Amino acid sequence: MRVMGIDPGLRNMGWGIIDMDGPRLRHVANGVVHSVADGSKADLAARLSLLFQGLNRVIAQYRPEAAAVEQTFVNKDATGTLKLGQARGIALLAPAEAGLQVGEYAPNAVKKTVVGVGHAGKEQVQHMVRVQLPGVKFETADAADALAIAICHAHHLQGRVMRVAASNRGTI
Amino acid sequence: MRVMGIDPGLRNMGWGIIDMDGPRLRHVANGVVHSVADGSKADLAARLSLLFQGLNRVIAQYRPEAAAVEQTFVNKDATGTLKLGQARGIALLAPAEAGLQVGEYAPNAVKKTVVGVGHAGKEQVQHMVRVQLPGVKFETADAADALAIAICHAHHLQGRVMRVAASNRGTI
Repeated sequence: MRVMGIDPGLRNMGWGIIDMDGPRLRHVANGVVHSVADGSKADLAARLSLLFQGLNRVIAQYRPEAAAVEQTFVNKDATGTLKLGQARGIALLAPAEAGLQVGEYAPNAVKKTVVGVGHAGKEQVQHMVRVQLPGVKFETADAADALAIAICHAHHLQGRVMRVAASNRGTI
Repeated sequence: MRVMGIDPGLRNMGWGIIDMDGPRLRHVANGVVHSVADGSKADLAARLSLLFQGLNRVIAQYRPEAAAVEQTFVNKDATGTLKLGQARGIALLAPAEAGLQVGEYAPNAVKKTVVGVGHAGKEQVQHMVRVQLPGVKFETADAADALAIAICHAHHLQGRVMRVAASNRGTI
């Protein structure tokens, strides 16, 4: 089964694709979709369109069978939250329009699944992504986050982290 | 020129279509797209998909040439703001994917253009929508808001409210 993870952002949308083969995970591809093509100041609707089309291209190329999007915690100002929400709407829509079920995970649920603790730092997460996806190289930190989300979703689909899921029910 | 206004919301997305014929405005249609089709608890991605497809149907049927979306002020809690942002992303995306330029107006800019004052109540806005679109009947308050946004955009496209626009530059 092929799983896609998406780390939503208005400027940079990280994505990662992995294959689940029984208990084994394999890296397929990762990257970032940008909403500003040429440094020009496109309007918001046009930027969201670029993100949507970029994700659609990734989905068409790699044909994932399941997807998950980070349920980003809201700790910015309201304007930042609204911007993030707009990007997140696109991140949820693209796989849904392709007929995929879309999972959502809070950042600490992703960390708990991938690293084992909910408050791991970025370096720890990236380290464990490398451990679980041997040979992986990621384009940026956003792409690494997206792979972590895909790993988290794969584990949940496998039912291997039911204990973690149960203890995190409030945040998933 | 045919103009579409959209009042974004995760549960109900209001839309309104008007025609600009020189200085005259004419009501074409209005309605609401719902994200919960049958009272069932669909997941968020599926709900956003319903909103996107609903707006796409309206755009395909009425073929607007310009669109505008309310730039909703953020006065709810962060979770509500994130939800609204997700719906707003879809409201901006649908017309952009149809090749339309999408304008954005803050609520008080819409009120100032439609009613003449920035802090008008809902009843005043609905009254002025009825005055400016003779014979209009709207399905709900969300649809009336969407028509007000379309009227606001039409006036700005006509350049009739350049003075208002200039004095509101910070909020438009």
